[in-house]
Amino acid sequence: MTKTNDFDAIMLNRRSVREYDPNVKIPRRDMLEMIQKATRAPSSVNLQPWRFVVVDSDEGKANLRPLVRWNTRQNDTSAAMVLIFGDLHCFEYGEEIYAKAVAEGKLSEEEKDRQLAEIIPEYKSFPKEKMKKVVRLDSCLSAMQFMLVARSYGYDTNPIAGFDHAELAERVGLDKERYVPVLMLAIGKALEPGEETVRLDAAQITTFK
Amino acid sequence: MTKTNDFDAIMLNRRSVREYDPNVKIPRRDMLEMIQKATRAPSSVNLQPWRFVVVDSDEGKANLRPLVRWNTRQNDTSAAMVLIFGDLHCFEYGEEIYAKAVAEGKLSEEEKDRQLAEIIPEYKSFPKEKMKKVVRLDSCLSAMQFMLVARSYGYDTNPIAGFDHAELAERVGLDKERYVPVLMLAIGKALEPGEETVRLDAAQITTFK
Repeated sequence: MTKTNDFDAIMLNRRSVREYDPNVKIPRRDMLEMIQKATRAPSSVNLQPWRFVVVDSDEGKANLRPLVRWNTRQNDTSAAMVLIFGDLHCFEYGEEIYAKAVAEGKLSEEEKDRQLAEIIPEYKSFPKEKMKKVVRLDSCLSAMQFMLVARSYGYDTNPIAGFDHAELAERVGLDKERYVPVLMLAIGKALEPGEETVRLDAAQITTFK
Repeated sequence: MTKTNDFDAIMLNRRSVREYDPNVKIPRRDMLEMIQKATRAPSSVNLQPWRFVVVDSDEGKANLRPLVRWNTRQNDTSAAMVLIFGDLHCFEYGEEIYAKAVAEGKLSEEEKDRQLAEIIPEYKSFPKEKMKKVVRLDSCLSAMQFMLVARSYGYDTNPIAGFDHAELAERVGLDKERYVPVLMLAIGKALEPGEETVRLDAAQITTFK
């Protein structure tokens, strides 16, 4: 797989890859570039609750290994394991995000104040379970976009939900009351192409009203 | 916005659009084609729990209107409202999906039987809340891919989570015990371009380990 900007090729040829070339590393600069693009995904009132922990060192991989269950092959051979968390306190960035929009001329100061005065108290008042739903939803949108961006950079991925959710945040030094683990993505250069898989016909799963 | 296969343009110029040209309709054939591509997204053990209800008729829109809260403008002007549900009984399609993979030479009969014998009882045993988490996660992945596919077809979208979740399934004739509403996507031709929005720097939301 080489770099490409061909959307159909990126989307239709993406496969889940479980074994990677262990010699391939991804420069952290490139990783940040990919995350920047992935986070062009939309989020609820633009609060961007996604947080990324990129485990790309041998020590980091060893630390993560006990929590990845049957996915040790991906952990051991990938260039990195990208852990995506949802931040239950994402509203704390509201002022910064909306001020940035004002600074870039995309929002007026008055509109910013008006919107934040509605959004922040509302989000603060959400019961924890509702907030978890919100941050998971948004984080998944950025996760899908990340998988596609990765492919445009010539990498393959594997989304992994089967890991020890209860232990993950603390294992990587995050407050487990604040950061909800959503998904892990293994990323690297495929050693062999992922398996082709089938899909149900769209007509089977779609109703028109 | 015209049709394009330029991945960067699709992804980086996607914006949430709230007002559409009410005269634009999307042929159902094209809608199914877009859904087929969107569902190339990955899902947990390929059970593809996403289900789509495409509300594109005047009657359908009128029926939906009381549930979309402050999003009536999207409901009224879009070509369609695409409702994405997660199917808590998705494992009932396991046999069909895996048999299709065998028929297409992508899986051996033995491997199919071995995998299903593990997967189906496990999924059936999930507590309802855990199953909801799984189907929501997968459905969001396909939702993000749908938004990008829509753009490649020359349409704009708006993801909407603010609707009456408790009433939505029954309102469109689905069993609310089985189908979990995940996200609505308004789709159509933008009457004016969506607002530009900002993002936090990737370095702010990323830690390397």
